[in-house]
Amino acid sequence: MVLDKGMGLGETRDLLDLAGGYVDLIKISFGSSALYPPEVLRRKLALIREYGVGTCPGGTLLEVALFQGVLDRYLGWAEKCGFTWLEVSDGTIEMPQTARSTCIRLAVRHGFRVVSEVGKKDSHQRLDPAGVGRQARSDLDEGAVKVIVEARESGRGVGIYGDDGQVKHDDLEEIVSFLPDPRVIMWEAPLKNQQEALIRRFGPNVNLGNIQPGEVIALESLRVGLRSDTLKTCLPKKEGER
Amino acid sequence: MVLDKGMGLGETRDLLDLAGGYVDLIKISFGSSALYPPEVLRRKLALIREYGVGTCPGGTLLEVALFQGVLDRYLGWAEKCGFTWLEVSDGTIEMPQTARSTCIRLAVRHGFRVVSEVGKKDSHQRLDPAGVGRQARSDLDEGAVKVIVEARESGRGVGIYGDDGQVKHDDLEEIVSFLPDPRVIMWEAPLKNQQEALIRRFGPNVNLGNIQPGEVIALESLRVGLRSDTLKTCLPKKEGER
Amino acid sequence: MVLDKGMGLGETRDLLDLAGGYVDLIKISFGSSALYPPEVLRRKLALIREYGVGTCPGGTLLEVALFQGVLDRYLGWAEKCGFTWLEVSDGTIEMPQTARSTCIRLAVRHGFRVVSEVGKKDSHQRLDPAGVGRQARSDLDEGAVKVIVEARESGRGVGIYGDDGQVKHDDLEEIVSFLPDPRVIMWEAPLKNQQEALIRRFGPNVNLGNIQPGEVIALESLRVGLRSDTLKTCLPKKEGER
Repeated sequence: MVLDKGMGLGETRDLLDLAGGYVDLIKISFGSSALYPPEVLRRKLALIREYGVGTCPGGTLLEVALFQGVLDRYLGWAEKCGFTWLEVSDGTIEMPQTARSTCIRLAVRHGFRVVSEVGKKDSHQRLDPAGVGRQARSDLDEGAVKVIVEARESGRGVGIYGDDGQVKHDDLEEIVSFLPDPRVIMWEAPLKNQQEALIRRFGPNVNLGNIQPGEVIALESLRVGLRSDTLKTCLPKKEGER
Repeated sequence: MVLDKGMGLGETRDLLDLAGGYVDLIKISFGSSALYPPEVLRRKLALIREYGVGTCPGGTLLEVALFQGVLDRYLGWAEKCGFTWLEVSDGTIEMPQTARSTCIRLAVRHGFRVVSEVGKKDSHQRLDPAGVGRQARSDLDEGAVKVIVEARESGRGVGIYGDDGQVKHDDLEEIVSFLPDPRVIMWEAPLKNQQEALIRRFGPNVNLGNIQPGEVIALESLRVGLRSDTLKTCLPKKEGER
Repeated sequence: MVLDKGMGLGETRDLLDLAGGYVDLIKISFGSSALYPPEVLRRKLALIREYGVGTCPGGTLLEVALFQGVLDRYLGWAEKCGFTWLEVSDGTIEMPQTARSTCIRLAVRHGFRVVSEVGKKDSHQRLDPAGVGRQARSDLDEGAVKVIVEARESGRGVGIYGDDGQVKHDDLEEIVSFLPDPRVIMWEAPLKNQQEALIRRFGPNVNLGNIQPGEVIALESLRVGLRSDTLKTCLPKKEGER
């Protein structure tokens, strides 16, 4: 999942021609899709669809719509724009479980593939791994196809990452212990050390999110062992090395 | 104001199609416009003009021209290239007040919209907020339409920002105390926490500068409350929250 | 030398039109060229060739080929793709001197301009400046036209740079003491302070590598004194300044 903070049409086509085969989903970040000239947004989403790649607005936009009590109009708007996925999150607002369930089910009924997001954007709220694991499981039961674990654009001091951006492995393991299959999770992982750690833990096909457009090919190199950091683990160890 | 460190023609068109409506001015940074193939520069400035967006060379180029005693030729060159704004700064060279006044007046007479810049690029020189406030006022009297407060590309340890990039609010308030209206200031604010702090202080229409091209839509989301950081301030507080 | 982590065709053309005259070599980083759609790679390399700029795959790809025992096929593939330069490195794998010599000679015989790379990517292995100097000299004797000193994409805690990204001047001087002419070296220098330090030490034409595409014009400004950091050294000193 690529985090798109405002690619123009030319840059979008460049990315798709070069690396579209390595991308499942492009997230038009935050509420920014509401700020595009409508015709530019329509053409951009149509272009991405041509390459078989999914698109969704950032979860913040749904949170605004929900807070304003216009969820139905939001779903209609997203459909008309040409989005094919929808994100359901509560990163900023408080959302009771019943509202969350309703959002997921309604979006599924509208024909969207739904990703839910778990975890708060606020770095002062410590992650509750068991709560995240249970929420993920519940979202899948409601119809979500994947669950994103929040890490923002920075990847520091949020979710499963410490202030230094390192993975907190105990938290990560506790989250997946609640799930039948860890592949239902899409880990936001904007930093290279995070991508590397998650590839080592879950294998080269792990779902990673908040990837910058210019990093897609570099990440694919990391996945398949064509970059030093993962290549060296394929090599025979020398004596004395662990 | 977007800091343009070398956008090509395609990228420029992408930015303008998507977000041109949110940009007032594109600054071709430092002296880099002197290094463009002339035909590429001419076409780029003409393209930006079509979208109703202003352009200026970085102030460093005027400083070089002044130091070399070729100010007149510089103004003629900038006009011929198609620049519509001009920046008058003394970020690197020493410039007596009389020279500064002459630059501003001459540029205005040539038909440019003039932005002056206050503050030194050298992080060893502590900001003098009263001096900056008085200089800003004087520049406006000479004909500048806006005054930029320097923060370089990094936004750390320079101007109103500490080494950690946080806003020094006392310095900021002292600067604006010298001005009839804070809206005459354009704050260079390359970091998100700076943009957020200035939006909170001066409202969503505050003039911000040194924005990266790829961040224009993200900043606009921040301005209008479509990004978590500013959205949460629109929400009702829970008990116990400040 | 530009480090290309995945520029599309439009972005590549943008860079070449604007700044192609300031670029000698574009390195398609790591093993990423193996992940391009072949037709996109072919067109991209042909486009770059039109502008008289060289291209090479990252050294990691040659290391993989050598490790798999398919060096000959690798050279044939690189030729067919349209690469004009080739990098020989041992940043990740262990490579005996005889294998290194063979790689350089074979690549030269295939008609490539060869750059070798010295230094390990692993930040735990301290740089051995004398070893690097001797290796560089030997590589040149084998036919390399330039020798790259490794600094990765980060430029921190690797090669001649400390963990803070500052240049270790003693190590640098020891390396060049082994060489007839320091201009045979291409210093990877992703950070601005590194570029500035090397320009001060070796002059504006020093070979610098791992430059981001969007930084080419900014670096050229730094080289020629059209950016504050190097401009100020051209100015007369005030009393009391060093």
